Amino acid sequence: MRMYDLIEKKKMGEELSTEEIYHIIDGYTKGEIPDYQISALLMAIYFKGMNVRERYDLTMAMRDSGDILDLSSIDGIKIDKHSTGGVGDKVTLVLGPIIASIGVPVAKMSGRGLGHTGGTIDKLEAFPGFDAALSEEDFIKQVNSIKIAVTGQSKNLAPADKKLYALRDVTATVDEISLITGSIMSKKLAAGTDAIVLDVTVGDGAFMKNKESALELARSMVDIGKRADKKIAAVLTNMDEPLGFAVGNNLEVIEAINALKGQGPEDLMEVVYALGSQMIVFSGIETDKAKAKKLMEQAILDGSAYDKFVEFIKVQGGDDSYARDVNKFVPAKHIIPVNASESGYVHAIKAEAIGLASMYLGGGRETFDDVIDMSVGIVLNKKVGDEIKAGEPICYIHANDLDKASHAEEMIRNATTISPDKCDHMKLIIDIVE
Amino acid sequence: MRMYDLIEKKKMGEELSTEEIYHIIDGYTKGEIPDYQISALLMAIYFKGMNVRERYDLTMAMRDSGDILDLSSIDGIKIDKHSTGGVGDKVTLVLGPIIASIGVPVAKMSGRGLGHTGGTIDKLEAFPGFDAALSEEDFIKQVNSIKIAVTGQSKNLAPADKKLYALRDVTATVDEISLITGSIMSKKLAAGTDAIVLDVTVGDGAFMKNKESALELARSMVDIGKRADKKIAAVLTNMDEPLGFAVGNNLEVIEAINALKGQGPEDLMEVVYALGSQMIVFSGIETDKAKAKKLMEQAILDGSAYDKFVEFIKVQGGDDSYARDVNKFVPAKHIIPVNASESGYVHAIKAEAIGLASMYLGGGRETFDDVIDMSVGIVLNKKVGDEIKAGEPICYIHANDLDKASHAEEMIRNATTISPDKCDHMKLIIDIVE
Repeated sequence: MRMYDLIEKKKMGEELSTEEIYHIIDGYTKGEIPDYQISALLMAIYFKGMNVRERYDLTMAMRDSGDILDLSSIDGIKIDKHSTGGVGDKVTLVLGPIIASIGVPVAKMSGRGLGHTGGTIDKLEAFPGFDAALSEEDFIKQVNSIKIAVTGQSKNLAPADKKLYALRDVTATVDEISLITGSIMSKKLAAGTDAIVLDVTVGDGAFMKNKESALELARSMVDIGKRADKKIAAVLTNMDEPLGFAVGNNLEVIEAINALKGQGPEDLMEVVYALGSQMIVFSGIETDKAKAKKLMEQAILDGSAYDKFVEFIKVQGGDDSYARDVNKFVPAKHIIPVNASESGYVHAIKAEAIGLASMYLGGGRETFDDVIDMSVGIVLNKKVGDEIKAGEPICYIHANDLDKASHAEEMIRNATTISPDKCDHMKLIIDIVE
Repeated sequence: MRMYDLIEKKKMGEELSTEEIYHIIDGYTKGEIPDYQISALLMAIYFKGMNVRERYDLTMAMRDSGDILDLSSIDGIKIDKHSTGGVGDKVTLVLGPIIASIGVPVAKMSGRGLGHTGGTIDKLEAFPGFDAALSEEDFIKQVNSIKIAVTGQSKNLAPADKKLYALRDVTATVDEISLITGSIMSKKLAAGTDAIVLDVTVGDGAFMKNKESALELARSMVDIGKRADKKIAAVLTNMDEPLGFAVGNNLEVIEAINALKGQGPEDLMEVVYALGSQMIVFSGIETDKAKAKKLMEQAILDGSAYDKFVEFIKVQGGDDSYARDVNKFVPAKHIIPVNASESGYVHAIKAEAIGLASMYLGGGRETFDDVIDMSVGIVLNKKVGDEIKAGEPICYIHANDLDKASHAEEMIRNATTISPDKCDHMKLIIDIVE
C-alpha cells in the first residue's frame, strides 16, 4: 500500500477502505508516513470529504492509536458530556453535581482552555489544592464513592488525534466535518463511557458559525457514536453571545456556584437542563425528559446539587471553604464598568470578541505555555434583547492592569451593538439530534 | 504574511497576489516554509487552480529562484525546443542539425531519461567521448562557431522547481495545469532563449492522455511565454504509439542518422518538419512555414543536415566515426522477433508499455542512479494502421538477457492489438497553438 496511491484515490473522490484508513493512521502515528503526505491527504479530504463508513473507520483507527479507558468497574451507566467550545461555558460545573446528586455517575475527562474558549480543568483549579491529575484507580474509586470525578487527560488517549490536529492547525484543514468528527469522537470513544451527550455550540463564539454546519457536524458525530454502539445525542446551543453573565475563571466558578444555589442565569440553566435531562434519560433513572428536568430542579431546590459540588471539590483535594463562601476568591484589582453611550436595545455582544478580551486581560491562553490569571474577566450586565439606557453599564471589566483594561474595553465596545429597535432574547436550544 | 492564511485563501478559491506567490516560492526554496504546508497548498491548487496572472507569477518566481542564462553573446535569435516527453522521441537529434545547417542557432539544454521516456543527453552519449557537460563559455562559443550545442543542465536553473517537483511527485499533485506550466516554463525562461517551440505530446505514452488536457496545457504555456515577451508556439503531437520505429538509445541514434540522410520514418519527419518550420519562422530566416519546410527538405537532400550532425558530434568531443558508419555501434546479443499470432490490421501499439519494455530490457532508468544499457531496445516492424500476417514480426527485441527479453515480449504482446477491421494510420500533428 503506497501512501501516494491513497492520496490520489481520495483526490479523485474515491472511498478509502477500512484497511487503507488504518494503514494511514497507524503509519502516521508511528512516524512512518511523513507530514507532507498527510497534509496533502487532509486537503484532499477537505475537498472530497468522507462518507459515514470512512468517518467511522477514521474515528476507530484514531481511537485505537492509544489507550482505551476501562470504566467497567464503575457501577451504572457511565455518561460523558462534551462541548465543542464556548465563551462563558461553565455548564459542566453546574450540570455535573446536579446529575451526580441524582445518582448518574459522572466520570469526566476535561481539557484546558486555549484561545477565546475556556476549559473546565482551569476553572476547577480556582479551588486551592484541587487535584486535576487523578490516577485511573483514584478516578474510578471517586466516581463509585461520590458519583463524580473530573480529571485532566492523563492517559495516552488517541495520540493520532494530537498529531493530526497539530498538522491540521498549520495547514488550514481544521474545518472539515469528517476530520472534526474523527478528532472529537475518537477521544470520546477512547474515554470508555456507555453514553455521550454532545453540546454542539453554534454562532459567533463557536467553531461552527451557522446552524447548517453545526447540524451537519452533530449528525455526523451521532452517526458515528451509534455505529460504535453508544447511546448518543447532540444538543445544538447558541453561542452568539457568552453563556450566562460571567467570563473568566473565578468569575465563572462563582456564577456556577450561584446557579447550583438556584440563582443561575436563565440561558445557562436552559442549556444545563437540556443536556442534563438527556443524560438522566440515558442513565435509565428516568425515561421522560420533562420528568428528568423536574428531578434536576428538585436537586437544586433541596440543596443536594450544591452539597454535591462542595463534596466533590473537597474529596478531590480542593479547599471547599471557597465553595461555601465565594467571597474568599481574591478579586481583581480593578472593576471597571463599560457604560453604554446611547440608549436602546442590545442587539449583539459578540461571544468570540468577549472571549478574546478576557484572554487579553490574562484570563486565557494564547499558547499552552501561558499562565492564567484566575481573577480577571468580564461580567455582563446586559444580555442580547435587554433594554439599556445611556450611561448604564453593558458589563464590568475585572482587570489587574489598567492598560489591558482599556484595550479590552475597546474590544468589548466593538463587539457590542445597541440600537433603538426592540430585539428578542436569544433562543438557546437550537436543535436536538438523537 | 502567514503561510496558513495563504493556504486558507487558495482553499477558498481566492487569487494569490504576486507578493504572496513570491513569498511562498522564496520561502520554500530557502527552506523557511516546511514541506507539509506546501503540499497542503499544492493540493488546494489542484482543486482550485490558478488564473493566468497567478501562473505567470508562479513561473517567474520559480525562474527567479536560481540562475538565468545570459545568451546575449550568441548571434541571432536563440530558440529552445522542448518536448513534454515521449517514447521513441529522437526529434531533437534530427531537428537540431537540420535547422542549424540552415543558420538557426540551436542552444539546447537537455535532460536525461526517466521511466518510460528517454532523454536526448543519454542518446548523444552513444558517441564515445561526447561531452554533455559544457561550460557556459564553451557552450556559447560552440553555438557561435557551428550553430549547435547540446548540453546537460549545468547551472542552478529554477531550484524551486526541483524542490516542488520532488514534493508533487510524492503527494499526488503532479497533474495540475498551473503547476505543470510553472515547472516547464520556469526552466524554459531561465534558459534564456528568445523563442520557444513546445512539443506537447498527447496520448498513451504522454503525460497528457487526451487532446483536451494537452490543449489546455499548451495554451497555458503559450500564454505565459507571451506574457514573458517570448516568441512561443506549441505543437500537439500524437504519442499513442512510439514515434518512428526505434525505441532504445543506440537504436534511436541510428534511426536519427538515417533520417538525416533522407530515410526517416514518415511520422517522425512530420513532427520534425512541424516543429522545425515554426523555429525557422521564429528565427526570421523565413516568414512562411511551407517555405521553411522546403528549406529543411533541401538541407536533408543536399547532405548539409547530416554533415552538420557529424560536425556537431565531433566538435563536442564525440567519436564521429560512429556517425559516419552506424555499424560501429555494438549491437545487443540477441535480436528476437515478436511474431503476430493472427492476421489483420494493427490497431494499437501502446507507447507507454513499449517504453516500459525498453526500460525493462535495460534501456531506461527507474531511478536516476540506474546505468543505461545503450544497445538494447525495440524496433517496430509495423505501425498502427499497417496490415500484418500471422507469423510476421510486429517488432524485434534487442536484448542482452533472454529472461528479460521474454518478459519484454509479454509486455509488448499486451500492448499490441491486431484485429480484422481496417484501421487508419495515426494523425501526428493534432493541433498548433500560437
